[in-house]
This record gives sequence, C-alpha cells and structure tokens, in this order.
Amino acid sequence: MDIGQYMHELGRRAREASRLVGKADTATKNRALLAMAGSIRRERARLADANGVDAAAARAAGLESALVDRLTLTEKSIESMAQGLEQVAALPDPVGSISELKEQPSGIKVGRMRVPLGVIGIVYESRPNVTADAAALCVKAGNACILRGGSEAMRSNQAIGACVREGLREAGLPEAAVQVVETADRAAVGELLRMNDYVDIIVPRGGKPLIERVMAESRIPMIKHLDGVCHVYIDDRADVEQAIRIADNAKTQRYGVCNTMETLLVHAAIAPQVLPRLARIYAEKGVELRADAAAAALIGRALPGSATVTAATEEDWYAEYLAPILAVRVVRDIDQAMAHIAQYGSQHTDAIVTEDRARAQRFLREVDSSSVLVNASTRFADGFEYGLGAEIGISTDKLHARGPVGLEGLTSQKYVVFGTGQVRT
Amino acid sequence: MDIGQYMHELGRRAREASRLVGKADTATKNRALLAMAGSIRRERARLADANGVDAAAARAAGLESALVDRLTLTEKSIESMAQGLEQVAALPDPVGSISELKEQPSGIKVGRMRVPLGVIGIVYESRPNVTADAAALCVKAGNACILRGGSEAMRSNQAIGACVREGLREAGLPEAAVQVVETADRAAVGELLRMNDYVDIIVPRGGKPLIERVMAESRIPMIKHLDGVCHVYIDDRADVEQAIRIADNAKTQRYGVCNTMETLLVHAAIAPQVLPRLARIYAEKGVELRADAAAAALIGRALPGSATVTAATEEDWYAEYLAPILAVRVVRDIDQAMAHIAQYGSQHTDAIVTEDRARAQRFLREVDSSSVLVNASTRFADGFEYGLGAEIGISTDKLHARGPVGLEGLTSQKYVVFGTGQVRT
Repeated sequence: MDIGQYMHELGRRAREASRLVGKADTATKNRALLAMAGSIRRERARLADANGVDAAAARAAGLESALVDRLTLTEKSIESMAQGLEQVAALPDPVGSISELKEQPSGIKVGRMRVPLGVIGIVYESRPNVTADAAALCVKAGNACILRGGSEAMRSNQAIGACVREGLREAGLPEAAVQVVETADRAAVGELLRMNDYVDIIVPRGGKPLIERVMAESRIPMIKHLDGVCHVYIDDRADVEQAIRIADNAKTQRYGVCNTMETLLVHAAIAPQVLPRLARIYAEKGVELRADAAAAALIGRALPGSATVTAATEEDWYAEYLAPILAVRVVRDIDQAMAHIAQYGSQHTDAIVTEDRARAQRFLREVDSSSVLVNASTRFADGFEYGLGAEIGISTDKLHARGPVGLEGLTSQKYVVFGTGQVRT
Repeated sequence: MDIGQYMHELGRRAREASRLVGKADTATKNRALLAMAGSIRRERARLADANGVDAAAARAAGLESALVDRLTLTEKSIESMAQGLEQVAALPDPVGSISELKEQPSGIKVGRMRVPLGVIGIVYESRPNVTADAAALCVKAGNACILRGGSEAMRSNQAIGACVREGLREAGLPEAAVQVVETADRAAVGELLRMNDYVDIIVPRGGKPLIERVMAESRIPMIKHLDGVCHVYIDDRADVEQAIRIADNAKTQRYGVCNTMETLLVHAAIAPQVLPRLARIYAEKGVELRADAAAAALIGRALPGSATVTAATEEDWYAEYLAPILAVRVVRDIDQAMAHIAQYGSQHTDAIVTEDRARAQRFLREVDSSSVLVNASTRFADGFEYGLGAEIGISTDKLHARGPVGLEGLTSQKYVVFGTGQVRT
C-alpha cells in the first residue's frame, strides 16, 4: 500500500470512529482512559524496552543530548503518563452540556450544545509522552485522533499506542479512535495535512520549523502558536518588590519555554530603583542582558566586574531567545510600552506590574495577546495553572481557542432549538 | 497607484484604525452608529440617485432581474438600513466583558475577556444594504473592516460608505474603521484575500461561486457556509399535525435561502399518514417532488391529476435546490435518518419532529450540524430568530463561530490574569 492510501485509510477509519466516540457517554470514555493507564502500568517493561531501542538509535545517529533526553522514558515518566490519563478521566466531560438556553419571541427555546470537533490530527516531535496525553484529551472530548510523533520515537509511540488501543477495547470503544501513524516516512505528515475531508483540526506541537511546515502545507484549521516573545512591563506605579520578584521569575524560572519573558520594559521613573537590583540578580544567574542606552547606563553601573551588558539591536526586540538572554528597554510611559509590545510582540503572553487600577485595565484591554497578566509572572500562562486540568497546547490565534487549550478547545458549540411545532411566518 | 499598493494601503489604515475602534467605549461606538443612521436619512436622495445609476447600468448590461431587484434601493430599504444601524446601536456591547473569573490554587485569578478580532474583510455580492449592516456590526464589536461589494453596486456602496464615514467622524472615530473598496477591478478581491498581515478574518457573503473562490484563494480564517442541504426528519412518534405544519413551512415559506429544507425524511410507520397530505400541499404550491420508491408510491396515489412525482437519483440527495423542488425519502428508523443526514447533508441545519424525548436527545447530540432543531421549522436558523439581534452570516465551520453569527462571533476571548505579585515555583 502506498503512503497516500495508508493515510487515507487511517482518515476513513478515524472519521468512522469519531461518530462512535462522539456519542459515547462519560463513564465509557473514563473507563477507556483508566484502562489505558492500567495497560501502560502493566506494560511498563515493554515500553521501556521499546524506548531503549529508540534512544540507542538516536544516540547512535548523533542526535543532540537534549533531544535524546526528551525522547527517553524513565520509570517515573511512564508512571506520570499513567497518572496523566487518570487526571483527564477525573475532569468534567464538556460534551453534551447546553448553555445560554433562552426562549425567543416565536416561542422556540434556543441554546448552545458543546459537541466534539470530530477528528484531530496531532503532529509532534520525539516526545513519547505526548502520545498518551493527546490521546487522553482527544478521547475525553469525544474526538478521534491521528497521532504522528517524531520518527526517532516511532517504537515508543507504537508501544504506547498498543496500550491506548487496549484501553479503548476494554471500554468497548473503537480502536481507530486513536491511531498512531506507523511509518517513519515524512510524506505521511504531508498527507495528513492535506486530508481536509477526514481531519477537522490539526494541532502541531513542537518548535518553529515544525509549525512553519504545518502552516505552509495545510489548509485545515489549526490550534498552534508560532512565537512566544513575551514581555513584562514595570510601571512607575509598581510595587518595587513585586516587580523584581516577577521580572526575575518570568525570565529565570525556566528558559526554554514559550511563556518565558524575552523583553523587559521599565518605566523611566522607576528604572533607577529596579534595574540595578535586577541586573545583579540576572548576573548571578548567568543571564546575558541586551539593553537600550538608557537601560544600559543603569545596568552597567550595577553589574559586578565580570558581567557586561551589550547594546540591544532591532533584532533583539523581535527575538525569542529561549535561553538565558534578556532584552531590556526603558520606556517613557505605558503607551510606549504597549506600542513596543504591539510592534515587536507575538501576541502570546504579556504582563504589567502596577498598583494603578486604571493602567492595569488599559493594559488588559489594549494588549492584544492570548494571555494578559497584571502583577503575576508570565510563566503562569499554562493550562494547569489556569485550571484547565490539562493542555493540548497554547494558541496565539484569535479564532476558536486562544491561550492555553484544554478539553473545551477540542470541542465546538452548535445551536440547539426546542420547539413545540413552531413555524416561521 | 497599482491595485496591490492600493489594497495594501487600505490594509495598513484598517489595522491602525482597528487599534482605536478596539478601545473605543460603548457610548462612542453607539454615537457613531446613530450618526451613520442620521446621515443615511439625510442623504437618502443622493443614495437613491447613485443607486439609480447602478441599477440602470445593470439593466443595460442585461443583468438578471432577480439580481437587479437585490441591487435596487427603495425609500423603504434605505429607511431600513438606517433602522438596522439603530438596532445594532441598541445591542449590548460584547467588548471588555470578563467571564469565568476564578481563583486558582496559586492565588492568581484567571478569567476570559471578550475582545475585538481586529480587521474584518467582507466580500459580498451586489446588495448595497450589506454595506451598512456589516459596517454596523464590525464597528459595534470594536473592529475595523474593509468592504468589497459586487461591482454592479459600486456607486451605491460608495454613497453609503460616505454616510458611514460621516458617522465615524461625528463620533471622533477614525474614518478608516470602515473602508469601502473603490475599484471595480476584481484583482482587489484577490489582494484582500491574501493580506494575512492586515486582515484577521474574511467573511464571504453570497452564492457558492463566491465562497468557493474565497476558499480557494485565501488562507485567512473565514466565517462562511458553503451549502445548505437541510433536512426535516418526521419520526413515527411525531405529532402528525405538527409534522405537516413544519414540513410545509420548512420548504415553502421561502425557497431561495440556505435554511430551507431540501430533503424530507419520513419514518416508514408514519409515512402513510403524512406523505399523502403533504404531497397535496406541495402540489398546490407548485413544489416538484423527487422521491424514493416507497415515498413515490404513497405520493403518487395522493396527487391530483396534473402533478407528478419523479424518481430521486443519488444527486438529488446531495442537492441544494434553492427552488420549489423537494427530495423525499422513507426511512426505516431514526438511525437511517441520521445516517442519511451524515452522508448527504451539509452540516447546516436539520430538524426532527418527534414527541419521543430520548429520540429528540439522540438527534440533538448526534446530528453534526450548526443548528439542530426539535419540533420547529429549519427556517428558524437565523440570527434574528435566535435573539442575536443581527447577523453577519451563518457559519457551517466547527471552529470559532458556528451557526448564525452575530456580534459575539466578531470578537474573541483572551485570558486575563489578576495577581498580587505571584510567581511560579
């Protein structure tokens, strides 16, 4: 069978399965998730073996050690996959709930019912845990899914896929509700991205090259974010201690993630109070600073002998470093801060630190990002921290889901109408 | 200036204007809408003149009379444009409202704020009233828009555009918040559809060829529906009088609209009671029937001498007639009815007539359409009937807006977070 036929067949089976999963009741879906968790625990030795082969091949092929790390399953990470499935089972089922039901002048009652999206295609890098996480969220929201992980994790993903199918079978759900693409041929991704008739939404999870490829090749709607150029703006009416704590945490709590601050904007009137102290904190943690002239002047004086500050270039304002590097700029006022964010930001996550309610309100309304925070670290922009219980990804698109996407983002709402024989006149 | 530069300039100005309209308060936006209505009333003679030239040119060019009718503005339709603007001014402003605000274990409060989408591109046929309607909805939802109506209505649209700008000016909003494309060059549409940087969403309003063109050319997200192959299923537990009233109304109240029933499905056990009576009603109203064998047998006996029933072909089940033609099929049960809808329908609007609650529930949950109705005519699938106050269009997509789209569909929700200095640990 050629790759086109193979993917077409997966698509056809997914569509068929989606009808059954879509109408499955909550108890059945939860039973499937718990059975998947059970199967993963029972088969943990087999999973570790399959993963060991993947990891050895990756090392032999000279894959970067950070990538091998992400690929590697440990006893602990296998257990946390199982726990993740149990957590999703414990979440409320969004499917079938009716909201906003209201009687209209004609006498009909109109409301909106939350329903599954259908078939979800997920393309991800070599992180086998995504296979279990994504399967759990898709099934709980009543969808079928087609999962295509990185080829380096092929054996691991197949082993996890077998556990997932085992769980579906135990609960009486169709095994095709979760299909793991079983070929390393990259053409499979291209096929998936073009199966508009079978796939309702594509979720690319991974770095920028992956997302760019998906955007270029697919016309299927997507849940995705491309860049995370996040800002913290310290207003002159900020609480200084809060500002320092937040600017420190937003940059240094974790460097390689999308909700890390990449540019710090500081009001000129408070800069002398916060920038020298922050500069010492960053220097201690090894964060390289790239600053405009005004910021550099304040920072330079404060830094210990070895640390330096370099002049920020235009590219620095656009940069998503994902590394211990921070761009710093002194601004005149909140307007200049918001103009900077509008020009250079990526509409992902931005925060203001201020005790001034009116300015906080303006920032919240006018900054056009998927998450806007007042007096809190950008690192909170996350499905778990937002109480979604789980996360399939973060969306910087404005349509459908925006920000961290949980179960609800894997559903849609349709109109339902209850009449007693009404006709239109 | 070439057409690319011209459209690029419209886009740039729309993006700039969208920032100001997006943060305008409710009173300012309403003042603009009321001033637009005032200007339309004051300028009604000028609008009628411009429209007269358009209509004369269209007639001279041999345009179909139905199209000339749609293009023609009367004193009454000019007044109803003005009233439409006033109605949108009276609607609640969705922008800025925060919902689902909830404190999380970390102490941050997380909610969702409704915000404008940004810039909306609307492509429509030669119906000048859409210019005023679309402008009203976009501005009220805090968006800028670029309007490109059919070239036959160019002078009318420009005259309406001048009234709209007058209203914006009076309220102190930027005139570029609503820009009417002032060239008949069809290349302008192509440019609009490719301005991803300036346009956040495209709304194509019109017939299938227009929508297909937009789908083929644009990668900007869309609010659109392609087909309206709507069904009524009469269950054997239906109230016979209700069933007849609904099946009559759903087909004959208006033929050329997207929420008109195109296929009637009748349970075999009730078909002998309803089909002969319906056949006589349809015959009287001149509706041509295309039926499967079982339905044809029941219909044939009931029809008066002149009327006939023809055998439905496979194409009839897929057909959106938009005309006094109806496909009729007798089905075994609700499952066969839903399977028919899944196979041949267009996920637009489908109705069941039944007194059986469990079957109504199954139909509501399992039929994957933007509107699903119980015991009411499909003709109710409409923004005004659903209480949205106005409608920019109907969407059969599953993402973002589904079904009739009002003000809310022209906004998105972002996450807002209120902290008191929280950092992530």
